[in-house]
Amino acid sequence: MNIPMFEKAEFDARIGRVQQSMRRRELDALVITAPPNFRYFSGYDTQFWESPARPWFLVIPAEGETIAVIPEIGEPVIAATGTVGSIKTWPAPRPKDEGVSLLSQTLLDLPRRFQRIGFELGRESVLRMPILDFLQVQKNLGATQAVDGSPCIWDVRNVKSAAEIEMIHTSAQIVSRSFEALPGFARIGATEADVCRSLTVDILTRGAHAVPFMACASGEGGYPEIISRPKARELREGDVLIVDVGATVHGYFCDFDRNYAVGKISDAAARAHEAVWLATEAGIQAARPGTKVSDLWRIMMNILEPAGMRGNNVGRLGHGLGLQLTEPPSNNSDDEAVLEAGMVITIEPGMEYAEGKMIVHEENIAISESGPILLTTRAPREMLSIN
Amino acid sequence: MNIPMFEKAEFDARIGRVQQSMRRRELDALVITAPPNFRYFSGYDTQFWESPARPWFLVIPAEGETIAVIPEIGEPVIAATGTVGSIKTWPAPRPKDEGVSLLSQTLLDLPRRFQRIGFELGRESVLRMPILDFLQVQKNLGATQAVDGSPCIWDVRNVKSAAEIEMIHTSAQIVSRSFEALPGFARIGATEADVCRSLTVDILTRGAHAVPFMACASGEGGYPEIISRPKARELREGDVLIVDVGATVHGYFCDFDRNYAVGKISDAAARAHEAVWLATEAGIQAARPGTKVSDLWRIMMNILEPAGMRGNNVGRLGHGLGLQLTEPPSNNSDDEAVLEAGMVITIEPGMEYAEGKMIVHEENIAISESGPILLTTRAPREMLSIN
Repeated sequence: MNIPMFEKAEFDARIGRVQQSMRRRELDALVITAPPNFRYFSGYDTQFWESPARPWFLVIPAEGETIAVIPEIGEPVIAATGTVGSIKTWPAPRPKDEGVSLLSQTLLDLPRRFQRIGFELGRESVLRMPILDFLQVQKNLGATQAVDGSPCIWDVRNVKSAAEIEMIHTSAQIVSRSFEALPGFARIGATEADVCRSLTVDILTRGAHAVPFMACASGEGGYPEIISRPKARELREGDVLIVDVGATVHGYFCDFDRNYAVGKISDAAARAHEAVWLATEAGIQAARPGTKVSDLWRIMMNILEPAGMRGNNVGRLGHGLGLQLTEPPSNNSDDEAVLEAGMVITIEPGMEYAEGKMIVHEENIAISESGPILLTTRAPREMLSIN
Repeated sequence: MNIPMFEKAEFDARIGRVQQSMRRRELDALVITAPPNFRYFSGYDTQFWESPARPWFLVIPAEGETIAVIPEIGEPVIAATGTVGSIKTWPAPRPKDEGVSLLSQTLLDLPRRFQRIGFELGRESVLRMPILDFLQVQKNLGATQAVDGSPCIWDVRNVKSAAEIEMIHTSAQIVSRSFEALPGFARIGATEADVCRSLTVDILTRGAHAVPFMACASGEGGYPEIISRPKARELREGDVLIVDVGATVHGYFCDFDRNYAVGKISDAAARAHEAVWLATEAGIQAARPGTKVSDLWRIMMNILEPAGMRGNNVGRLGHGLGLQLTEPPSNNSDDEAVLEAGMVITIEPGMEYAEGKMIVHEENIAISESGPILLTTRAPREMLSIN
C-alpha cells in the first residue's frame, strides 16, 4: 500500500497560518527544534531523531520563506523536501559550537520589528537542543527576547486539514482491522509480549509506517495501569487484556485501545466495560464545534460515577492527537479549550471499579460542522473473546 | 524468546556510580527527565514517552535512595520496578503546575551541601519538560543553583556493565541474522519501503523488542544520504541499497548498516565498498583501552583518503551507543575521549567517492582489556546481492 504524501500547498498553508499567528502574538521569528514540529512545517520524514548528537533548526520568519539551519548530514534530504526556502549547514557533530553561532547569526540577520523570537518553551513542548546551548543563543540575541512560541504552534497544529484527518483515519482503520484480527492469533496461555508482537507484525503488514506506541496490560477482571510495554505475563481465564496502540501513517498517529475477555470474565468486569462503552458513546455524540472539553469530561463522568467509578489515574478522559500520540487539549475539568471543526481528539473514558481493576476505552474522532466523524471502527459493545 | 531483564543489583550499582560522580562534581542531587536516563536509573520500560503531556522526574540525591516525582498514572508501574526508593505523585495533566511545585519542594527538602543541583542541560541532552517550567523550578530553588548534570550521567552511561553489553550483543545478533536473510525477501523492482517492511517484520519475529530506527537509501552505485526513512523508490540493476537499523532489546540499541548490490554494480562502487570494509577492519583492530577516538578516526581516514574519498557529510566515523542509537563520544578529529574497557561504539567509516554517491559501512564493538569484541556478525567483504 503506497499512501501518497501531502502536496506542497499543504506546507505553504501551514507556514501561512503560523505566520498569521506569529504576527498576532508579536513574534519576529519562530525557531523549531522538536521532531513533530520540524516534520509539520517541512514534511521531512526520518527516525534519525533517535540520535541526540545533532540539533536541527527550522527558522520561520514572520514573513517570507523558512530557513533550515541544520547539520551537514541533513542538507541533501532537506533540499529534497522542496518545502524549505533556504538551507544553512554546519559540520556536525561539533559540541563546542553545535549550530549555536550559525543559528544566532541567522536570527540576528532577520528583520526584528517586535524584538521577540519564539522558541518551543511552553505547554507540552520539548526543546530538542542542549539547554546550555539555548541559553547561549539567548545571550547572543542581545536585546531581542527569546519567548514562548508554543501557543503559535498549537494554534495551527490543533486544527487539522482534510488531508491530515485522512492520514489519521487511514492509520485508525489499519489498526481497527488488526484489533479485529487479534483473537485469531491470541490464545489463553500466550504472553502479553507474544500477542503484541503478532499484533505489531499484523499492523505493519497492513501498511502502517511505524508502531511507536504499544501499551499492554492484563489481569483478572481488569488492570492497574495502561502505559507499560507488554510483559511476559501469560493470559489466564477471567483476565481482561487491554492493548493500546499508536501506529503512524506519514507520522500521523491513531491512538486507541481495545479490551478482550480472556475466556469467561466476571459480571463486574463486563458491567464496567458496558459503562465505559456507554460513556464513549455519550462523549462522541457531544463532541461538536462549540463544546468545551470540560463539558465533554462532565458528560462522561455522569455515566462513569453512577456506574461505580472509584477513580482513574489517567487524569483525563481523552486528548488531542495528530503528529503526536497525544496533543492538547485534555478532556478534564480544568482545560478551557473549546472544540472546533478540524480538531481530532480521543474519547477515552476509564474507571477503576475495584482495587487495582481499571477498564479504559478509547475511540478517535474528528470534529466537523456536521458533527463528530468516527475515525476508528467503533468497538463492539461486548468485548471480543480470546479462547 | 524471553530475554530476562537486569537484576536489581544492576540498578543499585548504577545509582552508586552516579552518586560517586556527583560527589566528585559537587552536586547535591541530579534530576532526571529524559526517557533513556529515566530507564537507565529505574529500569522502567514504556513507550508512553510518546505522549508529551506529562513530565516525569527521578531525583537522585547525593546519598541515599532515589525519589520518583511523577504523574499519578505512573504510580503503580514505578512501584512495580522495585528500584526506586520512594514515590511522590501529582494529578496530571495539570499544565498550570505540571509537577513544578512538587519537584521544587522535593529538592528543597534534600540536604544541600554544595547548593548545586544537576539537570540534563549539556552535551547530547534534552530536558523533557517545558523550559518555562524548568525556569520556574530554578527560581523556586532560590540560592541553590541549577547546573549541568550531564557529565555525571555520561560518566556512568559511557561504561557499560557485562549485562548491558549482552543486551546490545543480543540485539546486534538478531539484526545480523535479519540482514543475512534480506536477499531472500528483496527483489529487483521492489521498493525500499517493501524491503524495509519485510525486514522490520523479520527483526521483530526473531525477538527484538522494537525497531525505533530504520534508515534506507538506494541509488546507482551509491546514495547521497543515509538518514531518511525508506521511500517508494524501486530498486534497479546497478543500485547499491543501504539499510541502517537500530533495533532494541530491553531498550538497548544495536546500530549498524549493510550494503547490498542490486544485480551487477559498477567496479567503482565495489572498490568504494572494499575501502570502507578495510577501514572498518582497521578501526576495529585499533579500538583498545587507551586509544583516543581521534586516533581511531585518523586510522580510518588513512585508508579512505587514498581510496578516493571526496567527503562524508556524516561528520564522524562512528560513535557510542547503548540506551540511545547514538551516544558520546564521536569518532572524529575533535573529540578528546579515550576508549576504556566497557565502552560500546560503532566503527562507521563512510566516503563519497563520486558526486552524490556515498558508501557507508558500520559494525558494533565492545572495548575490553583483551581487545575489541565484535557484537555484530562481521559483514562479508563483498556485498550480498539482490536479484
